[in-house]
Amino acid sequence: MTAVNTENESVPTPRERLLDAAASLSYQDGVGVGVEALCKAAGVSKRSMYQMFTSKDDLLAAGLERRAAADERLVPPADSPSSPRERILYVFERLEEHALLEGYRGCPYLAMQVELKDPEHPASRVGHRVKAQLEAFFRDEAGRGGAAEPEFVGRQLVLLFDGASARAGIRADDVQGLAAATAGTLLDAAGVR
Amino acid sequence: MTAVNTENESVPTPRERLLDAAASLSYQDGVGVGVEALCKAAGVSKRSMYQMFTSKDDLLAAGLERRAAADERLVPPADSPSSPRERILYVFERLEEHALLEGYRGCPYLAMQVELKDPEHPASRVGHRVKAQLEAFFRDEAGRGGAAEPEFVGRQLVLLFDGASARAGIRADDVQGLAAATAGTLLDAAGVR
Repeated sequence: MTAVNTENESVPTPRERLLDAAASLSYQDGVGVGVEALCKAAGVSKRSMYQMFTSKDDLLAAGLERRAAADERLVPPADSPSSPRERILYVFERLEEHALLEGYRGCPYLAMQVELKDPEHPASRVGHRVKAQLEAFFRDEAGRGGAAEPEFVGRQLVLLFDGASARAGIRADDVQGLAAATAGTLLDAAGVR
Repeated sequence: MTAVNTENESVPTPRERLLDAAASLSYQDGVGVGVEALCKAAGVSKRSMYQMFTSKDDLLAAGLERRAAADERLVPPADSPSSPRERILYVFERLEEHALLEGYRGCPYLAMQVELKDPEHPASRVGHRVKAQLEAFFRDEAGRGGAAEPEFVGRQLVLLFDGASARAGIRADDVQGLAAATAGTLLDAAGVR
């Protein structure tokens, strides 16, 4: 957090390389990925790493944070003219697309929390906050779309999102024709237009 | 797999103690739990452990298998007189109860697969098989209850189950009043009685 930011488009800094390595290797291999492997992937010495981050936990959290900042693709643009219902379904349509990608391992914010098993871990907190934002998006759109209980619909939809991303991530179900259709069923029942 | 089975109710064998330690410690702390910790918890030497299991992976799989054999609580008894709809909702009501338990970390079969990130791992295969059985239960009951597309309803319900168990396991949502109610909404939409 103290490094001077010298980033530009083409040359990531050592700090950025470490963050990207932490995000991608933990996503691919799990939170048990070693510091050595992270440093090697980033091309940064362990000594330098520990000058930038107090611990691997700290690095994992900062890596997830950086991923979240770049990860705006799931939610439609704020100025899209679509209805609340369409804006909610957009999220599930993107999820179905992502589920087909070869390296897809499910929602990284959910996986991080499932693996760490500690809601107080700094990376769990990042994951929790990102998903709370998604739940708030669902709730607000459901409310705008006429749901009598928008908070309840928000809980339902983020639960559905996590179930679909988890099952696609473990290759139990490709969720094609399933995630968005089920969201649609829940929106119908809640009267969201 | 080769040990003579000398088990009785009160004295678990070293093999059983290892299996129970593998199931409970991996559930509590994750699949990264060390062989030393497993042997210590079981009161078994590493040497003995490697005489019984070829690897930690093998032990994790066998531990999950043993857990699955003991874990019949989620599904109602085969001879229960309830309707298909009630039998399906029973599963989600139990899930809501389990979600309140202090040590609850979500569905162990899902967590194992999320953590291992390898569908071919022997423990992933156990987890996958157990959940495929749950999906088949949902599908068969939905069919008996009059669903036009029982397979689709089975996919929806196991997705809902995994989402609810994951969110409860990470303490993002206690799923009270949520899991069974959402299952009910999906059953209504599918016309399952």
